Amino acid sequence: MKKIGILTGGADCPGLNSVIRAVVCKGLHHGYVITGIKNGWQGLIDNDMKVLDLNSVSGILDRGGTILGTSRINPLENPDQIKKISENYKRSGIDALIVVGGEATFRIASELQKRKVIRVIGVPKSIDNSLSGTDYAFGFDTAVNIATECIDRLHTTAESHHRIMVAEVMGRYTGWVALEAGIAGGANIVLVPEIPVDIEAVCKALKNRHQCGRTSSIVIVSEGVTCKDHPEFFKTISEKKMHTFGGISELIARMIESETGFDTRVSMLGYIQRGGIPSAYDRLIGTRFGVHAIELVEEEKFGHMVSLRNNRLHSVPIEEAIEKRKTINMDIYDMARVFFAE
Amino acid sequence: MKKIGILTGGADCPGLNSVIRAVVCKGLHHGYVITGIKNGWQGLIDNDMKVLDLNSVSGILDRGGTILGTSRINPLENPDQIKKISENYKRSGIDALIVVGGEATFRIASELQKRKVIRVIGVPKSIDNSLSGTDYAFGFDTAVNIATECIDRLHTTAESHHRIMVAEVMGRYTGWVALEAGIAGGANIVLVPEIPVDIEAVCKALKNRHQCGRTSSIVIVSEGVTCKDHPEFFKTISEKKMHTFGGISELIARMIESETGFDTRVSMLGYIQRGGIPSAYDRLIGTRFGVHAIELVEEEKFGHMVSLRNNRLHSVPIEEAIEKRKTINMDIYDMARVFFAE
Amino acid sequence: MKKIGILTGGADCPGLNSVIRAVVCKGLHHGYVITGIKNGWQGLIDNDMKVLDLNSVSGILDRGGTILGTSRINPLENPDQIKKISENYKRSGIDALIVVGGEATFRIASELQKRKVIRVIGVPKSIDNSLSGTDYAFGFDTAVNIATECIDRLHTTAESHHRIMVAEVMGRYTGWVALEAGIAGGANIVLVPEIPVDIEAVCKALKNRHQCGRTSSIVIVSEGVTCKDHPEFFKTISEKKMHTFGGISELIARMIESETGFDTRVSMLGYIQRGGIPSAYDRLIGTRFGVHAIELVEEEKFGHMVSLRNNRLHSVPIEEAIEKRKTINMDIYDMARVFFAE
Amino acid sequence: MKKIGILTGGADCPGLNSVIRAVVCKGLHHGYVITGIKNGWQGLIDNDMKVLDLNSVSGILDRGGTILGTSRINPLENPDQIKKISENYKRSGIDALIVVGGEATFRIASELQKRKVIRVIGVPKSIDNSLSGTDYAFGFDTAVNIATECIDRLHTTAESHHRIMVAEVMGRYTGWVALEAGIAGGANIVLVPEIPVDIEAVCKALKNRHQCGRTSSIVIVSEGVTCKDHPEFFKTISEKKMHTFGGISELIARMIESETGFDTRVSMLGYIQRGGIPSAYDRLIGTRFGVHAIELVEEEKFGHMVSLRNNRLHSVPIEEAIEKRKTINMDIYDMARVFFAE
Repeated sequence: MKKIGILTGGADCPGLNSVIRAVVCKGLHHGYVITGIKNGWQGLIDNDMKVLDLNSVSGILDRGGTILGTSRINPLENPDQIKKISENYKRSGIDALIVVGGEATFRIASELQKRKVIRVIGVPKSIDNSLSGTDYAFGFDTAVNIATECIDRLHTTAESHHRIMVAEVMGRYTGWVALEAGIAGGANIVLVPEIPVDIEAVCKALKNRHQCGRTSSIVIVSEGVTCKDHPEFFKTISEKKMHTFGGISELIARMIESETGFDTRVSMLGYIQRGGIPSAYDRLIGTRFGVHAIELVEEEKFGHMVSLRNNRLHSVPIEEAIEKRKTINMDIYDMARVFFAE
Repeated sequence: MKKIGILTGGADCPGLNSVIRAVVCKGLHHGYVITGIKNGWQGLIDNDMKVLDLNSVSGILDRGGTILGTSRINPLENPDQIKKISENYKRSGIDALIVVGGEATFRIASELQKRKVIRVIGVPKSIDNSLSGTDYAFGFDTAVNIATECIDRLHTTAESHHRIMVAEVMGRYTGWVALEAGIAGGANIVLVPEIPVDIEAVCKALKNRHQCGRTSSIVIVSEGVTCKDHPEFFKTISEKKMHTFGGISELIARMIESETGFDTRVSMLGYIQRGGIPSAYDRLIGTRFGVHAIELVEEEKFGHMVSLRNNRLHSVPIEEAIEKRKTINMDIYDMARVFFAE
Repeated sequence: MKKIGILTGGADCPGLNSVIRAVVCKGLHHGYVITGIKNGWQGLIDNDMKVLDLNSVSGILDRGGTILGTSRINPLENPDQIKKISENYKRSGIDALIVVGGEATFRIASELQKRKVIRVIGVPKSIDNSLSGTDYAFGFDTAVNIATECIDRLHTTAESHHRIMVAEVMGRYTGWVALEAGIAGGANIVLVPEIPVDIEAVCKALKNRHQCGRTSSIVIVSEGVTCKDHPEFFKTISEKKMHTFGGISELIARMIESETGFDTRVSMLGYIQRGGIPSAYDRLIGTRFGVHAIELVEEEKFGHMVSLRNNRLHSVPIEEAIEKRKTINMDIYDMARVFFAE
Repeated sequence: MKKIGILTGGADCPGLNSVIRAVVCKGLHHGYVITGIKNGWQGLIDNDMKVLDLNSVSGILDRGGTILGTSRINPLENPDQIKKISENYKRSGIDALIVVGGEATFRIASELQKRKVIRVIGVPKSIDNSLSGTDYAFGFDTAVNIATECIDRLHTTAESHHRIMVAEVMGRYTGWVALEAGIAGGANIVLVPEIPVDIEAVCKALKNRHQCGRTSSIVIVSEGVTCKDHPEFFKTISEKKMHTFGGISELIARMIESETGFDTRVSMLGYIQRGGIPSAYDRLIGTRFGVHAIELVEEEKFGHMVSLRNNRLHSVPIEEAIEKRKTINMDIYDMARVFFAE
């Protein structure tokens, strides 16, 4: 075995470049040729690839994004694209493909592995921390640190103006960022997709808190929350991606303001949570994952992905990652209640 | 003269605490009693004030917001409130009031000075850098640094996804933050309130840029931009504060996307631009302003505000600050064109 | 049981205030009175303590250091001090003492528990990550992030000047900070206390690297490294705390420079690694530990400390933490070799 | 005129890459060929240069250091080197050379211009803010921000341990960084080269402060301070560059500790002050300077350098920059005394 491909798929995530650098350094050390495929699956469809050497990956550890580019294309929806992937994969002489991605990317990788179109080793990323099959998938630590720093900033402005500040953070299906940044940032209310929002309870808790003398509050909202009482309404907003219009958190803010009478503002943290300098931990994990991916290639563990269990590296079938989402740790949520308004 | 009051009015701004600390340290050094008035003019209406000592201002230099709180109340609209201000001011025995604020706060201060309700020394803040009468009013440097750091982050995600990223920054009437953060952050298009947006020209420039091989672009939008072709439409959005819904930048993004066909996303930087740790320069200027405010009290320069000219401290009548807004330096804008897509 | 004391001992560490806040919030929730003891064991000797309420711990999550103060006093060396601790502990009516500290503080706590002077629950901190008995003790994540950010900065100056930069990081007995920040920061040589330094091998590796065309290198040195060939010499420097004079890293730099001929400079990261804003993870762990400490008080697990195992909270006897140091994970070190010069 | 060279000389400085990028963008816009010379004057001696295009300068705005490399070589000491510079300059067909540097680099540039070896336009950098002839030379704002952030961190550890913390910052001949970061960081003593240190007065002030109930203090020391009473002793340390051993600040710390009895520690901020991400202001100024340098080439203002006066760009003879150093603004120093211990 000689030639290894690597692609990054789905949304970008801090730590992707650490994986790419590690794959190249470790791969070259073993005498492999490492081929970078541009823009996720699109690069395999378009035959857009180039050999990566040490210079290609020099100075990228502290860079966000991915030097390979990424895309959200789904070739499973298009047989022609799968055919092209198959042709280009064969033509390129790639012996194994390291696929760095999350749930959507892994669904494609797993299916293509099953159909024997490609031989895949997965490397899990998950800025939402929602991927199963591994204790941790990189990206999340950076996102939590950025969100926490933003919450720190919102505190001072909320306090100065005696406002309620509603901050919307990442988390389409799981509330990990909201929960951990909410605890670290000293939020007073944390709303997560795992628990439908009871807006009346929220307003009551905020009123209680302000009756006890507090004049400002911080409410953290996962972008994917749903509402206990108006589930259809919330769902519509979420599905139509109206969150880019401040959808759900703006709606929650307006409900809080009208119910409590407190001046309430929204801050959408958005894309800055995923860009920029990766945290030390995400660089470390990305590096460890990249090195281990090459080891799994050597072991011919195709169809498997790198997995971290109790801080040790293992491999699990890629299916394990996509079977179901990893929802928030309820022990941590319950622990945190003592800090939340109620 | 013995007793000096200090209040912070209008929107909070990084550096307010530096001013408060400096006023207290310098004032106590001169044997004054310093009285902190809570929540801007509201505190004078409600007689909500307390004496500040060195302990009150210890450890606040690196804190955003204002330990005194602030409000946006306008007593000029309510004669009863002016009466209460007058009563509480007299009753408190305050000899002079240091008012830290921007345009709106200074309009009130100037009027109350004219009516001899209070004796005022102004200290100018302006996160938008739009205040006249001084070369610089603190808050802006921090906002530009935060916005620039956010733009750095957006670059990596824009490049990875081959997207156009539209970032909305502060600047209701002037484009200083957009211009300086746009230059520092390497933006490709910078839209400011001083120049009505020609959306067709923007789209053409972006298309040109992408035809030259670039696959991502960064567009910076001041929250207060208006549109050349649809001025009424834009104005409506701005006036209704629909910008909290991603109004103007979302609208621009949708127009860009439909016109150019490039995937275009919005990032609203919002409140995080004004919260959090002040930059070294804003702390330095806040400190210098606070010290000089006490000196102006000694000189009985009532009705004047601290002013920075060529890095030296002076005073000017508060009216100078509010006569007209300081619009962007067109020399810098013209200089920057060479970096912008066209 | 009603009255709970809390003290922070030994060197300060990011996350201490998260623990204090969590102990207060959780404790008050259970109807306990929480008494803060000032300056570690010194406060028990001097009877310097005060009751903590919610206001005492408001706004401290993002503050480094400890609002209680700390000290390095060792009462085991002075029977009078133990007597005073015993008297003041009884007089104060404290039912249990939560001791937040590292190895030295826990030796004292464990002994005083054995002698039935106090009833102790431990909360482990360890900026060096050297404490046993728990997978993680807070402080380390912040230190690694700061060290990594500093290494990022050293890269650009090293590259511009074609220099070797030797950066000394924390780690008196264990090389965790050097190893993790070295990997995350893309260091070329990482020297840890666990492996005696072979200075000839280091110089050879650097020469090899520069012969392959690289013109700058980053060498990370734990403050506690010893040398293979001159162990006595290095030991002397280390014991005499000559490291505050740039001791060991300056010495290594001079040896590298004379042996390789490359311009070699030293950067001592020092105290900035332990001060300042805690990372999100250290705040989260500090918070979880503080809450669990109160739970252990309820369970009357005296002589035990909070322990994190596979991201779940447990308790272990305090002795387990101090029996032996947790040295670096050799799997990670071996993994990282592929990135190191050789 | 067609071909423009650019070199960066002396110590690296945040903002150098902004200048290079601006020179390339503006130069290409005018139809010039821009040639980058590697490693300062060394590249002219070695004929090490390459043409720079837009790709060469893409993504470098937020990068510290200089993509061209730098060196501290002084060809004025070696006639052979001047000869080679002359030959290579002619051979390369360069019409004018943009020299980005500080005092030492400008001495060389000025002399070579006088001897008609090269035609020079200067761009001033000065991390110490010591360069005359311009209100500002980039690099300083970033250094002050980093130093201030470090002082913030030192506060929390100093307070927790009731220590005096002595922090050594940049400033070989002028105390600008110490003064501005000292004010912004809330330091209690600021020692600058412009005012010989009176160590007895320092100790007395610290004792006074601690007698008033404070238990920690921050002392900022410029690396180039001299001592009132022991000038020879301090001078020796400074000249022998013993500051890399913690020389002067370690010495001051030991004197403070022995005189006051307070636990006193040293933090050397060192190289991290010059590396890493430039502040927004340094990027803006670097960009403006680079654009203006091309304009000065057009105007054939050889022997001149870019100069900022009252926020407008001008040019002055390079000699003005090197005649004498810009010492600290005594108005600011005097203003700050109210915050210093005495």
